[in-house]
Amino acid sequence: MSLVVVALGGNALLRRGEPVSAQAQRDNIRLAARSLAQLLVDGHRLVVTHGNGPQVGLLALQGESMGKRAFPLDVLGAETDGMIGYVLQQELDNAYEPAARFATLLTQIEVDPQDPAFAQPSKPVGSVYSEADAQRLASERGWSVAPDGKDWRRVVPSPRPLRILEIEVIRMLVEQGVIVICAGGGGIPVAQRPDGTHVGVEAVIDKDHASGLLAAELKADAFLMLTDVAAVFTGWGTPAQQALGDVTPQALAEMDFVAGSMGPKVQAACDFVNRTGGMAGIGTLEDAADILAHRAGTRVIPA
Amino acid sequence: MSLVVVALGGNALLRRGEPVSAQAQRDNIRLAARSLAQLLVDGHRLVVTHGNGPQVGLLALQGESMGKRAFPLDVLGAETDGMIGYVLQQELDNAYEPAARFATLLTQIEVDPQDPAFAQPSKPVGSVYSEADAQRLASERGWSVAPDGKDWRRVVPSPRPLRILEIEVIRMLVEQGVIVICAGGGGIPVAQRPDGTHVGVEAVIDKDHASGLLAAELKADAFLMLTDVAAVFTGWGTPAQQALGDVTPQALAEMDFVAGSMGPKVQAACDFVNRTGGMAGIGTLEDAADILAHRAGTRVIPA
Repeated sequence: MSLVVVALGGNALLRRGEPVSAQAQRDNIRLAARSLAQLLVDGHRLVVTHGNGPQVGLLALQGESMGKRAFPLDVLGAETDGMIGYVLQQELDNAYEPAARFATLLTQIEVDPQDPAFAQPSKPVGSVYSEADAQRLASERGWSVAPDGKDWRRVVPSPRPLRILEIEVIRMLVEQGVIVICAGGGGIPVAQRPDGTHVGVEAVIDKDHASGLLAAELKADAFLMLTDVAAVFTGWGTPAQQALGDVTPQALAEMDFVAGSMGPKVQAACDFVNRTGGMAGIGTLEDAADILAHRAGTRVIPA
Repeated sequence: MSLVVVALGGNALLRRGEPVSAQAQRDNIRLAARSLAQLLVDGHRLVVTHGNGPQVGLLALQGESMGKRAFPLDVLGAETDGMIGYVLQQELDNAYEPAARFATLLTQIEVDPQDPAFAQPSKPVGSVYSEADAQRLASERGWSVAPDGKDWRRVVPSPRPLRILEIEVIRMLVEQGVIVICAGGGGIPVAQRPDGTHVGVEAVIDKDHASGLLAAELKADAFLMLTDVAAVFTGWGTPAQQALGDVTPQALAEMDFVAGSMGPKVQAACDFVNRTGGMAGIGTLEDAADILAHRAGTRVIPA
């Protein structure tokens, strides 16, 4: 029985550009839960993480909409863990017939307050805007904004995850056979003060990097990043475009991937494989079981 | 080493009428954490629950403020579990010097969809209003509103908690020495469908009743409800007003308490004591340790 850490991409919760609504989110999560339930039926143990970009941006907007200052991003991130994690646990429990125990856990992840990411906000959150609207919102609200594909979005700092504060508890739950949902939205970003106490920071950690760290710390057999693209491609958008199947970190290091699309996923996959010797898969939600069986998606494997 | 379940009243998070802001909430929670840390120093094991009335009301308002339908109350409740539970865990960890393991867990609590409470909304959530504003909001938004002291507030159904879905996981964590924060806001209200699956319901479970059920299921040695009143009083507001110290459920049954103030706390205390033979305490946050030592607050004890 292998342990699989699955990171659900944003599209498992909301399709790109789809407005955040409770019903749309639940419908999408129900579909995702069916794929995850199949992994349980196949006998894998599961730890599930998820993104929160559109949701954390929406809560920030809602918080500001009443003429107040929005709650800081660490607290908003924790809110999205509740908003998404609850529905994910419920739908996964509903989709998987045998009796099973679940735990959805708030997860703090330590970052370096000196991380250069704080000076260079890069992680898109919230809705998509036209360039003009984005620039207006940036000047009105003090946001940083940047292009994201053909749209513009708010961007926030995305520091590197260093340490998962709840890792021992997560490990204990996994060892006891509990299906764990954690590190939602890349975990709640916190920094350690000189006296050893912790404080939240205004950032959103990249979900794939946080999930890769989690998978490595748990010595997972496999780490799956599920998204709306079937595989990692070379020559994307050219006639020579080709899906990668089994590939080593060494081979990937010699290829170029656009940062912001597949770049972080490929990096997180290589980090996990180099650290653990396990397998990291990238592909669609529907293909989850087939990726583990080396029949679909891109599988990053040790040399 | 005794197991204590502590239910933090709303005033531990926000003083009555104080607007919900991230800083005010964190400052209040930091004070609460100091009292809870003392219980850990005294050698007790802790499970902590908390209210969410003002917060869940605020999130509902914010959700509606952008011209959209707010998320349903089960999802909003889960959001407040993240918003409050994260800060509570962090401040408790900061206030307690020894290394300790914490888990903040989303908690679903089953209710009966036929519970008569659904036809009689009674649980106040959100801000306080004048009667005129409350009536206007009721007609604009389809709310139920009711007087709460001298103010008016939105009220929502508050069905009786029947079963805690994550109870086995909570018990496992407690047995492993983990400090658990759970059942925030009275737990996320869900109903079981005829096919055995679960679905969220539009309600807010009373925190004290949910916490009492939790304490009984965990066979806790003590169940504390911490609020801004020093004890349960007889003859409240009369010259004969008198604080109750040690008192049995049988003696309490012969006294009258106003529903909505001390009524639910007294009921939850008696239910716990009758079911387990443990001790239930009611008093202020600052007195937590003294209540356990029978030096402060009201202690409901077996006959």
